Amino acid sequence: MGQPYEVRLVSFRALKEPAHLALHPFGQIPTYEEDGLALFETGAIVLHIGERYAGLLPGDPHARARAIAWVFASVNTVEPPILELVTAKIFEAGKSWAKERLPLVEDRVRERLKQLSAHLGDADWLDSSFNAGDLMMVSVLLRLRSSGLLDEYPNLAAYVARGEARPAYKRAFAAQLAVNTR
Amino acid sequence: MGQPYEVRLVSFRALKEPAHLALHPFGQIPTYEEDGLALFETGAIVLHIGERYAGLLPGDPHARARAIAWVFASVNTVEPPILELVTAKIFEAGKSWAKERLPLVEDRVRERLKQLSAHLGDADWLDSSFNAGDLMMVSVLLRLRSSGLLDEYPNLAAYVARGEARPAYKRAFAAQLAVNTR
Repeated sequence: MGQPYEVRLVSFRALKEPAHLALHPFGQIPTYEEDGLALFETGAIVLHIGERYAGLLPGDPHARARAIAWVFASVNTVEPPILELVTAKIFEAGKSWAKERLPLVEDRVRERLKQLSAHLGDADWLDSSFNAGDLMMVSVLLRLRSSGLLDEYPNLAAYVARGEARPAYKRAFAAQLAVNTR
Repeated sequence: MGQPYEVRLVSFRALKEPAHLALHPFGQIPTYEEDGLALFETGAIVLHIGERYAGLLPGDPHARARAIAWVFASVNTVEPPILELVTAKIFEAGKSWAKERLPLVEDRVRERLKQLSAHLGDADWLDSSFNAGDLMMVSVLLRLRSSGLLDEYPNLAAYVARGEARPAYKRAFAAQLAVNTR
């Protein structure tokens, strides 16, 4: 949003310590702090920032409500099968069922991608113009890049590329890369 | 919220038909319609109603942002492993790995319940007074009732019972039961 911010890195060990659990009861990242307010959950942080600065939430009340619906669709409808795929590939990779079960999990991801692809059609963004819903959906879909599943839906692959090409995305990505490699 | 509303039931077949997909791109329920606005995603509908009527979102801006964080925590941190458990028990019940894998999935649910239980402690609600975050969390935890896992965390079981004992919950539950059995 063009606003100044400071980044605080959290080690894997510190994630489960009381100081961090006071900010994030589930011991995860990200957290967000500002003038006596501490938030967790990416979706909530995005909505909070979107309410403070112009550019992420439409001014029209109906369009704004729909943008928020797409934020929830990203994290509660599209992401859960993607998380399951990550779990299957990483945490259950050595299990006896890993190879036989993987196609089932991939098909659950495909079901969501197919529906999302049908909705998007040849539009640039999910609901007329770019908003918080697209920000969140692109971020969720990026988790699929290495799986190859995204490329089965060319309009979704192009949608994600469109999201990554935004100057604000490139600026934020470069800033985070700099923090993590300093 | 004490407001009048009409219920429209959707058959399993109709869920995947164009008329419903125009309201919900992923062919699920619930959807919400009001004066030219169509919404989907429970979390978005709850926030929309919470913004229109007093009782679900605190007036204090910081408390309001934290309530929204708990709505997201419900659907994006606590619910995904619960959805995985449902999938394991129903859609993969007949698979060769079902019996061996179930304890792993249950332990992922327990990890979240343990963290949530530690946060709640002996408080009545997640953040000082009842709000949309509790509404959503109780609704997500209710999915666990038949599993017995909730009863391993007595303060969470009591929290859910507290949510169900609210007059507004009982009224809404009775109204929905009446619709489904008419």
